[in-house]
Amino acid sequence: MRVAILAHEQFPDRAKTALGILRYADYDVAAVLDRDREGGRVRDFVSDVQDAPIVSSMADVDDVDALLIGIAPIGGGFEESWRDDVRTALERGCDLISGLHHFLAEDEEFASLAAEHGCDIHDVRKPHGDLTVAEGVARELDAEIILTVGTDCSVGKMTTTMELARDAQAAGHDAIVVPTGQTGIMIEGWGNPIDRVVSDFTAGAVEEMLVETADDHDYLFVEGQGSIVHPAYSAVTCGILHGSMPDKLVLCDSADRDVIHGYESVAQPSIETYVDLYEGLAAPVAETEIVCGALNTHGLPNDEAQSALEAFEADLGAPATDVIRHGTDDLLEVLL
Amino acid sequence: MRVAILAHEQFPDRAKTALGILRYADYDVAAVLDRDREGGRVRDFVSDVQDAPIVSSMADVDDVDALLIGIAPIGGGFEESWRDDVRTALERGCDLISGLHHFLAEDEEFASLAAEHGCDIHDVRKPHGDLTVAEGVARELDAEIILTVGTDCSVGKMTTTMELARDAQAAGHDAIVVPTGQTGIMIEGWGNPIDRVVSDFTAGAVEEMLVETADDHDYLFVEGQGSIVHPAYSAVTCGILHGSMPDKLVLCDSADRDVIHGYESVAQPSIETYVDLYEGLAAPVAETEIVCGALNTHGLPNDEAQSALEAFEADLGAPATDVIRHGTDDLLEVLL
Repeated sequence: MRVAILAHEQFPDRAKTALGILRYADYDVAAVLDRDREGGRVRDFVSDVQDAPIVSSMADVDDVDALLIGIAPIGGGFEESWRDDVRTALERGCDLISGLHHFLAEDEEFASLAAEHGCDIHDVRKPHGDLTVAEGVARELDAEIILTVGTDCSVGKMTTTMELARDAQAAGHDAIVVPTGQTGIMIEGWGNPIDRVVSDFTAGAVEEMLVETADDHDYLFVEGQGSIVHPAYSAVTCGILHGSMPDKLVLCDSADRDVIHGYESVAQPSIETYVDLYEGLAAPVAETEIVCGALNTHGLPNDEAQSALEAFEADLGAPATDVIRHGTDDLLEVLL
Repeated sequence: MRVAILAHEQFPDRAKTALGILRYADYDVAAVLDRDREGGRVRDFVSDVQDAPIVSSMADVDDVDALLIGIAPIGGGFEESWRDDVRTALERGCDLISGLHHFLAEDEEFASLAAEHGCDIHDVRKPHGDLTVAEGVARELDAEIILTVGTDCSVGKMTTTMELARDAQAAGHDAIVVPTGQTGIMIEGWGNPIDRVVSDFTAGAVEEMLVETADDHDYLFVEGQGSIVHPAYSAVTCGILHGSMPDKLVLCDSADRDVIHGYESVAQPSIETYVDLYEGLAAPVAETEIVCGALNTHGLPNDEAQSALEAFEADLGAPATDVIRHGTDDLLEVLL
């Protein structure tokens, strides 16, 4: 399938979904829409993903099967400045793929255009209707459950999960990703959008995915969300921790910050505190341990990245690496 | 307003909403519906609340303004065995008040009967549409925020919150309850049903209520939910803890159990562990402290209740009481 990815004014650093799709999805990406970077190419900014031209609007895109919304503002609302592109896409018969909290299928103009032009609107963040509360059974499942947890949002939990699962598969293991967020769901083609479910069902929506897949696979790599000290999203993090009852945890951190992104008055605590919080909170429900770490050193020169990694590893007291720079071998050794 | 309360097969011990309404709401309760206890009276089972006859169906109830659903199965579904009573109520022109996850206004038969007979259906667990993510500002508000936290569900967080706020008011303080669950919302007549909001908005939905009320009151008593070690509901607990950024915490416990209710394989950790988890988890976002405790000793003889209280107080290292047996004086002394 051939897609265009909308990422206006935010590519690449604030376009997490667009980058995830370019890196991991099976789509053929015809173009990225970013009116601030018109005329450039993906490869000018990011070296290790699928390349594509950057254009300013849908009018500049050749035939594609779908327009995919590749950015997500805080709160997940729809930006009216995107409406022309979405309208153009629908008028040309393209499907829509969106992970916004604001469902595009419920927008009157889009619904009507989609009906008129025979387009499908896939709101991947819309949970199915049969979710319910967790039964607390994940620990009894016949699969090893590995969860990525983070010091903050956007530190590399999804990337780490994808890299670990793909490398485990390549090494001959029966491993899958259990996606919990919009990008992971778009890449994997299935999954419950945990940050969009009824809060009472947060743990239950994770557990459901594990129950459905544990019999068929040996390793379930669960994509974590947020951070246990995030002022807005910690509920989701906590629900995933208790709902998945992971056998092992991977702590993901980013070398580029020491406060919670967007909540600058909240300092990140020490790595030791994160370890205590995640392990301490999990223990009464299902004991687990942070057995390794993944540090995002994107943008740092090699020597600084190396120093940051060594400091992180020392604080963690466990193997750590940057999975994009150095691969996952050191981590898979303690995980599998 | 005159109401009947549906509590089939669960009154009084598993009818938390019914009991909360009987104890704290301004409704005149005409009858409690419980087909297993037909012919009895509320007073036969509970001594310190509004009395009412117990009947087996709506057919046995005189004129009332509304039928209120006073029980909530795990998962919040609608029991088909209640349909006759709800139908009868609507046919007689009564409104419905429900806190189920399953919205009665979306039931085709009920919606059609309500339209035909001019009845309102109040699904109090339906969140309003403008909720969004927390901004992390509760700590800056000009009011003292006091949150009840628990060792489990149904240990007395709502009761403790109600008693503390009412006694603070009686002592001349400008205090209100900030309700977060269906029963609290029914009693207070406002509030966001935190366990029913989109999980990403859990903290934000609490914060919104605090921002809206902090300027007008000195003390905000926030009703806690669940427990930080609950296998299904910890997400809600965590979101309320971080969204409310409480100045002080009250730990609520029940003397009648040592495992998580309904999840018998999960042992309750020590009181010291609960204190560490609640305070440790709050600290990176907004430091707070458990300054007192409330122990539910319902059903215990006086001497056993006293021993349980002394043990709880010793474990907690802070003043504790049973607010129903002994009132709230000891707690308000350290809270106000």
